Amino acid sequence: MTNDELQIRAVIEAWASASAAANLDALLRLMTDDVTFLTPGNPPMGRDEFAASFRSMIGSVQLLSRSDVQEITVTGDLAICWNRLEVDVTPVTSGNARRYGGYALTVFRRGADGQWRVWRDANLLAPR
Amino acid sequence: MTNDELQIRAVIEAWASASAAANLDALLRLMTDDVTFLTPGNPPMGRDEFAASFRSMIGSVQLLSRSDVQEITVTGDLAICWNRLEVDVTPVTSGNARRYGGYALTVFRRGADGQWRVWRDANLLAPR
Repeated sequence: MTNDELQIRAVIEAWASASAAANLDALLRLMTDDVTFLTPGNPPMGRDEFAASFRSMIGSVQLLSRSDVQEITVTGDLAICWNRLEVDVTPVTSGNARRYGGYALTVFRRGADGQWRVWRDANLLAPR
Repeated sequence: MTNDELQIRAVIEAWASASAAANLDALLRLMTDDVTFLTPGNPPMGRDEFAASFRSMIGSVQLLSRSDVQEITVTGDLAICWNRLEVDVTPVTSGNARRYGGYALTVFRRGADGQWRVWRDANLLAPR
């Protein structure tokens, strides 16, 4: 595995940890300023919309996600990653997890500081 | 617009035309041998699964799609495209179109022959 691939896998792991810890600041550090998130049935989300959406969930649900990276292709300062995801969304009131599964196609960008961050993300999670 | 971007836009237009004409051979020429299609709630599809799925629709539905390219980023022999799609699926028996809309994140790869083809595709279409 190349050093770039190891760094990108570390970003993916840090993303899952920050989601589980409801740590929005940590998540924002893992995405570019001009990030775009695409999901089925919704308009594209930028950084501010992501933050607003994430804040609305903090305290009401617990997120637990697992990823199984299928492929990482690095080309210059961009990297394309295809990933299998499983996410449990557990409302703190009921404790009954809703399970989602599916794939994500994510493009990472390496910044001037050498760090890889999420830049374009298509998230295809569906209820399991 | 660069020459690469023009060629990629031509592939996108050719894809829509081939879909409308139910021309599977033309579609297969627009994708790489190792293409992967990701859609919500389904396992990844390769070239053979795409062909089987497309064949099962030929004759029973008419596909009419419009695309509005949001961004194309070329890096070496890969290009990342973010696209707004609208697709009308019209059963030939009823004539009542079902309308789908949403985004696609597509990675194109340039082959040794210089042609750009679909390589990784995340399709987020949802009923409108």
